Amino acid sequence: MSVTAAQGFTAAGVAAGIKENGNPDLALVVNTGPRRAAAGVFTSNRVKAAPVLWSEQVLKSGELNAVVLNSGGANACTGPKGFQDTHATAEKVAEALGDIGAGSVAVCSTGLIGVLLPMEKLLPGVDLAVSQLGPHGGEKAAIAIKTTDTVHKTSVVTGTGWTVGGMAKGAGMLAPGLATMLVVLTTDADVDGADLDRALRAATRTTFDRVDSDGCMSTNDTVLLLASGASGVTPDRAEFAEAVRAVCDDLGQQLIRDAEGASKDIKVEVINAATEDDAVEVGRSIARNNLLKCAIHGEDPNWGRVLSAIGTTRAAFEPDRLNVAINGVWVCKNGGVGEDRELVDMRFREVHIVADLAAGDATATIWTNDLTADYVHENSAYSS
Amino acid sequence: MSVTAAQGFTAAGVAAGIKENGNPDLALVVNTGPRRAAAGVFTSNRVKAAPVLWSEQVLKSGELNAVVLNSGGANACTGPKGFQDTHATAEKVAEALGDIGAGSVAVCSTGLIGVLLPMEKLLPGVDLAVSQLGPHGGEKAAIAIKTTDTVHKTSVVTGTGWTVGGMAKGAGMLAPGLATMLVVLTTDADVDGADLDRALRAATRTTFDRVDSDGCMSTNDTVLLLASGASGVTPDRAEFAEAVRAVCDDLGQQLIRDAEGASKDIKVEVINAATEDDAVEVGRSIARNNLLKCAIHGEDPNWGRVLSAIGTTRAAFEPDRLNVAINGVWVCKNGGVGEDRELVDMRFREVHIVADLAAGDATATIWTNDLTADYVHENSAYSS
Repeated sequence: MSVTAAQGFTAAGVAAGIKENGNPDLALVVNTGPRRAAAGVFTSNRVKAAPVLWSEQVLKSGELNAVVLNSGGANACTGPKGFQDTHATAEKVAEALGDIGAGSVAVCSTGLIGVLLPMEKLLPGVDLAVSQLGPHGGEKAAIAIKTTDTVHKTSVVTGTGWTVGGMAKGAGMLAPGLATMLVVLTTDADVDGADLDRALRAATRTTFDRVDSDGCMSTNDTVLLLASGASGVTPDRAEFAEAVRAVCDDLGQQLIRDAEGASKDIKVEVINAATEDDAVEVGRSIARNNLLKCAIHGEDPNWGRVLSAIGTTRAAFEPDRLNVAINGVWVCKNGGVGEDRELVDMRFREVHIVADLAAGDATATIWTNDLTADYVHENSAYSS
Repeated sequence: MSVTAAQGFTAAGVAAGIKENGNPDLALVVNTGPRRAAAGVFTSNRVKAAPVLWSEQVLKSGELNAVVLNSGGANACTGPKGFQDTHATAEKVAEALGDIGAGSVAVCSTGLIGVLLPMEKLLPGVDLAVSQLGPHGGEKAAIAIKTTDTVHKTSVVTGTGWTVGGMAKGAGMLAPGLATMLVVLTTDADVDGADLDRALRAATRTTFDRVDSDGCMSTNDTVLLLASGASGVTPDRAEFAEAVRAVCDDLGQQLIRDAEGASKDIKVEVINAATEDDAVEVGRSIARNNLLKCAIHGEDPNWGRVLSAIGTTRAAFEPDRLNVAINGVWVCKNGGVGEDRELVDMRFREVHIVADLAAGDATATIWTNDLTADYVHENSAYSS
């Protein structure tokens, strides 16, 4: 059900011809109200795509009428012409929907960096999408934003009389600062822009921001949350925030499970850190260690590579107090050899690494993937 | 000629049986004087192997009589027993050479982390090495320190009446904080410990510290420089420093060319940075971008991945003033599309990326490799 699970939204997904293979490549999500509150979180990459620069601007009002998303081209590093194209896309959506301004239309793009979008195909595609808008269009929208994704990703959480739903795309260039991904969440809860913003930032901080498949941060990451208020229900603030977090968490997990070329999903849990920042820094260092990611691919519980990754951080710890468990076996105790590594069962897709810093009581979990020959192939065989 | 190119040194390399395959695994380098000046630089990883902790201590005197090196085991994350083993190794060398103390013997180890060394094989190996010490033993010593290296690495630079020579090992876990490598340099120049230290630190800062094959920092990195004074010549300070730099640079290049699984050597040159620190930060970010490394493997001049890597740094730059050249073709100009990417010839092993930050006049060069299926295989098929 995706972005149309909540009342007050219509959506569509069409093939505009931006992708040469004819697959769906243009999605449209429209908030039919009565409310048009919205919040957004964007990549922290300083090289931002034109649609990110545009959408950051329009979000300042705290309101959105629509979001238009294209796959088949990132419109990043495309100069003034790229920004004009984003603007023209928003204008086209506003004109086709009628009665709204371009300044209430967010734009998201994904695909190859450094290539201008084929506007002669994209703009007619907007008309086509508007003609197909409907209250059940969420799945098609989710399909139209796929790039190297093998499946489309959607999630729905239902509260008492209200719903939060969403869609996501992302498979490569997954890293903090939001992973290479586009996410649109919708809710029919009656929530204003400030509360949406609070809930969204809190949710992304511990979900998408801790999904780090390959350490590469995108130019286009965008997560939007739109509220129609169509349910007429204003939920408890904490309950609503938890629903947003749950949808983000679910979509984040789906991104990891579909990461390019991956054969393992790795949960890196850092415990007993002095601070949450320390826990995140250590988790990321472990998650980005290519040698460890290769070892996990080979089902080798190589805890020495975990320790060498921890050692590169500034976190508080004493080397001879570090403990590491892999799939429940404490293979490293007090910085040295622990339980027998032969006891570690790594046959399954999910691998759970626990790094105990013995320095406090803060914790954080980072999700990553193994490094595989398929990842290399997928990212070297053609431009993406 | 390696470590015995300079007068005043003997060396040996033997098979002590530490490696199960029977290959040479123990090297010994002895300074026969008259001077015993020495300097060392060690990994900045906070998880340091026992031999690093030991050698850092003994180097405080600014003097060394000998260096003993073993492959076949890193003696890292091995607790108090590991440190006792390092101490016992130095004691054994001192006893076998006679007339010197263990406190003037540096120890270096390389191999799998988290495994105790087979001391019952290593200690007799020291006797064997001492029995084979000779003024032409440099090559054998260089061979005995190999792990996944496919070739042994040596280098010699000759001044007027004096020589600097050296050997290195390293192929994986190559990253700043000195790459996973062991390096022993020797000179017969008559130079004291303080001057050696100055020359060595200056040299490693712009050579080994800028070799970043896979972003993974080792627990065992050690670079030692020993001076025998046997030539009786005290060279000009700048001339001597340049000779040390040249040997370090040559050995660093040899490490990159032999990096595990690599098919491309990538020179990342950052120009027009506001500061040298900015240039190094940007160079490292580019060098560690897995997606870019895959693209280079695929001979794809994917400059968008260069820009997205630059964007993750704190360096001073304006996105719309960035320029990128790949093998001499400015494929990105002013943050957007530049010259035709079809003009880029990437058939050869060396790839040259220039990132122009247009923010000042500082520069730095980082060397890295591409990311290949062979790298994944070599680091997943067995524990290393």
